[in-house]
Amino acid sequence: MNYNLLKGKKGIIFGALDENSIAWHVAKKCVDEGAQIVLTNAPVAFRMGKIEEMAASLNSVAIPADATSMEDLEQLFKKSMEIFGGKVDFILHSIGMSLNIRKNKEYHDLNHDWMLKTFDISAVSFHKVMQTADKLDAINDWGSIIALSYIAAQRTFPYYGEMAESKALLESFARSFGAHLGKTKKVRVNTISQSPTITTAGSGVKGFDMFYKYTQNMAPLGNADADACADYCVLLFSDLSRMVTMQNLYHDGGFSSMGMDPTLMD
Amino acid sequence: MNYNLLKGKKGIIFGALDENSIAWHVAKKCVDEGAQIVLTNAPVAFRMGKIEEMAASLNSVAIPADATSMEDLEQLFKKSMEIFGGKVDFILHSIGMSLNIRKNKEYHDLNHDWMLKTFDISAVSFHKVMQTADKLDAINDWGSIIALSYIAAQRTFPYYGEMAESKALLESFARSFGAHLGKTKKVRVNTISQSPTITTAGSGVKGFDMFYKYTQNMAPLGNADADACADYCVLLFSDLSRMVTMQNLYHDGGFSSMGMDPTLMD
Amino acid sequence: MNYNLLKGKKGIIFGALDENSIAWHVAKKCVDEGAQIVLTNAPVAFRMGKIEEMAASLNSVAIPADATSMEDLEQLFKKSMEIFGGKVDFILHSIGMSLNIRKNKEYHDLNHDWMLKTFDISAVSFHKVMQTADKLDAINDWGSIIALSYIAAQRTFPYYGEMAESKALLESFARSFGAHLGKTKKVRVNTISQSPTITTAGSGVKGFDMFYKYTQNMAPLGNADADACADYCVLLFSDLSRMVTMQNLYHDGGFSSMGMDPTLMD
Amino acid sequence: MNYNLLKGKKGIIFGALDENSIAWHVAKKCVDEGAQIVLTNAPVAFRMGKIEEMAASLNSVAIPADATSMEDLEQLFKKSMEIFGGKVDFILHSIGMSLNIRKNKEYHDLNHDWMLKTFDISAVSFHKVMQTADKLDAINDWGSIIALSYIAAQRTFPYYGEMAESKALLESFARSFGAHLGKTKKVRVNTISQSPTITTAGSGVKGFDMFYKYTQNMAPLGNADADACADYCVLLFSDLSRMVTMQNLYHDGGFSSMGMDPTLMD
Repeated sequence: MNYNLLKGKKGIIFGALDENSIAWHVAKKCVDEGAQIVLTNAPVAFRMGKIEEMAASLNSVAIPADATSMEDLEQLFKKSMEIFGGKVDFILHSIGMSLNIRKNKEYHDLNHDWMLKTFDISAVSFHKVMQTADKLDAINDWGSIIALSYIAAQRTFPYYGEMAESKALLESFARSFGAHLGKTKKVRVNTISQSPTITTAGSGVKGFDMFYKYTQNMAPLGNADADACADYCVLLFSDLSRMVTMQNLYHDGGFSSMGMDPTLMD
Repeated sequence: MNYNLLKGKKGIIFGALDENSIAWHVAKKCVDEGAQIVLTNAPVAFRMGKIEEMAASLNSVAIPADATSMEDLEQLFKKSMEIFGGKVDFILHSIGMSLNIRKNKEYHDLNHDWMLKTFDISAVSFHKVMQTADKLDAINDWGSIIALSYIAAQRTFPYYGEMAESKALLESFARSFGAHLGKTKKVRVNTISQSPTITTAGSGVKGFDMFYKYTQNMAPLGNADADACADYCVLLFSDLSRMVTMQNLYHDGGFSSMGMDPTLMD
Repeated sequence: MNYNLLKGKKGIIFGALDENSIAWHVAKKCVDEGAQIVLTNAPVAFRMGKIEEMAASLNSVAIPADATSMEDLEQLFKKSMEIFGGKVDFILHSIGMSLNIRKNKEYHDLNHDWMLKTFDISAVSFHKVMQTADKLDAINDWGSIIALSYIAAQRTFPYYGEMAESKALLESFARSFGAHLGKTKKVRVNTISQSPTITTAGSGVKGFDMFYKYTQNMAPLGNADADACADYCVLLFSDLSRMVTMQNLYHDGGFSSMGMDPTLMD
Repeated sequence: MNYNLLKGKKGIIFGALDENSIAWHVAKKCVDEGAQIVLTNAPVAFRMGKIEEMAASLNSVAIPADATSMEDLEQLFKKSMEIFGGKVDFILHSIGMSLNIRKNKEYHDLNHDWMLKTFDISAVSFHKVMQTADKLDAINDWGSIIALSYIAAQRTFPYYGEMAESKALLESFARSFGAHLGKTKKVRVNTISQSPTITTAGSGVKGFDMFYKYTQNMAPLGNADADACADYCVLLFSDLSRMVTMQNLYHDGGFSSMGMDPTLMD
């Protein structure tokens, strides 16, 4: 079912790697809803994945860009505006990677250079994207920007390491840059705090299965999957949510408001 | 513009009084989006307002019901299901009235019987609505329930009296009953924390103009109006938000995330 | 060990029933720290418990008062000021009782008259206490008022019924009345969100043991007990916390900031 | 007045620069309350300030250490334990500096290398301090660690630039490392979200006076000053707060719970 919610809109989607990526689900739904999109990811992801093929299947284009590089981002926005023949209406930031988790460093034994690199990739990249778009005047008035976050920004989960801090940063960037873009261009910026989701990236994290089951049991509606997340992104890109900004929006089947799994009482 | 987001859905809208009511804006949008609705309000509101006329203009029916009366609510749901030929998909609770504000009692000089009556009207009624719907098995799986709230549930505003507490109650009911309805029927329950809105009820409150201007200046997007609120309700009634529950969602142009109006710095 | 933190201060402690009561622990500590106190509880509690004996052991006085009765509260404050020979410096509100829980009514099948009575006893009583104290000008400048709350005000726990809403109300009263008392008398008002605590009242609640173990495992420091809670109350009654007001302060060994018990991962 | 609240305890205080520093107020109070302390700051601050003289006046020692250097931190903890003849009981982290603010870069035109350096100085240093202390087993069981934060971590203020993000990071480190230190050593970690405070560092920030007045008017108790902050730190270092961890504690005269300055209504 589609509703034409994004008819005529143009968007850039960061972070699609393969068919399991949330970003890929979002890209597909956006096209289904009438949008034209550009897919982007790091050059190395282009080599590993099948991003170009995926883009082609949506009659869209894939442009490699390192989201930590201001030069790459500038090129990305310029090329996208050329392709679109105009400015961008929406952006999805779905980027996260922790060097310390990858190297199995525990939280009390982190390498701080890696930590700063993790922040740069997973969170500062969001600021860089918005700064570039703002500088190039690349976003239409009433545009919508979303980054994907996780409840570890508010509460501590095992094995999530410095990603807790990365998500806290990400949500803060949404508020701070949202204030600027709201005032100057009526553009809104929000984060979606998504359930643990079965993706190629997510599933690789130690203890992911346990995470997943825990929140699946606790949340009254169960975990939100990538497909539901894509639907929610579409809503937040649509004009119907135009006055929502600087918010962190839980999309988690109710997990965040549960104090305890009632089934444990039995 | 409409999208058919609520095609085939049926809903009950509490609290439409006249053309300025948020509930009225919601009712119109829902019908525009393909829903069939029933309007309801207190019997006294039927005498004051033009509810039946408004309902007729949407080819819908208006049923008087005192939302503090379990008998009235039972009748309302039974009649609505008859009219719809089936269960309900969505409910809007837009009810609030403070006896102490009406009588100009200050916060440190409240009448506590009136306070409890205010709670009954403005918040407990929400529990009663959900309890009735649950008991009669009147909501379809994956249904959506919304109540309208205000940021006074989190922060103190002058002249808002016991309504701060009423809204805190309302948001708590959404969480608690949301846990039950989510687990048993996949039904979601949320509150929208709406900007001060120019309505017949709102504008009557002492200091409303000052409230309104204050948040209008502070919020990067300005205040959200009744029309935008109706759009946001439609989103939350649609299937695309099916995994969002037990949340209080700010719909306020960013006000809730601002610490200070930047224009004060000039 | 004591520090004379409350030397010369006078306080009223609501809710001590027996030696397991948190309020009793608070009363003892306050006296140890140099304060003079009055114990109070409902007349029925005087018949069930040994409140007068307990008060005597602290060289203090016990005064029965129904905290839902403005007349009783007025008498309580007047008598207390007579006994103290002056105004009050601190107040503890440790009152909570749910009629629906007592009658084993489930959350989706509540009696709403009982619910309103629960609110009156467990939360509105807090407003009544402050309104009475304010009216009689019974609190010294820079005084401190605390009510005991629970995290069910923010997240849903099984079997906690309408007490979730009572605590949400209680915390809202602290904010709203705190704004008034802060501005006019430099008096601060806060709530402490306490771990599940083994008391005569608490332990009677269905599922209490499960609650207790759950939070005990999850909280990095384990559950805070009544003795630690009493210490924290002393801190908040002392002059050293004079600028903290309108806050809900978690005293829970870290439970509120945990997303998941890490031992579940093993 | 003093209470011997910290009798026999030993602590390290980061960030005292001159007599206006909050850290200096904390150091003095801690010594008044019976603690032995070590002052530390960056080598460059030793040259600018009069840290050694200040330390001498408390019969304590000042040790230069760059809080971004793991080597310096290791030396600091080793020397401190030598001086103390044992482990540390409490730590204050009062460090914050923004390169982009210093260079007057606006939020939508930041230098991202400077931003990462700001994060390293203002927030990652907190993780480094805790990691070093943990590794050297330098903290006694039931020790207490505090970092000073600001409400910009939750809401957007003008001219506060990337410090909003630094404070969000800082508060997240408190939660994440607090979970580890709580479980393994019963050590608690909290942040104090302090009112704008007149210090040599604070007052230099553009628009500080406006900030200060704004919160001074809004907060029912007015802004909390450095002296009150020092008192609150003493409480949180004392055993009486031993079960409070992973919290961000507003010390702000109630500002954080106000929605609007009531005097604006007149």
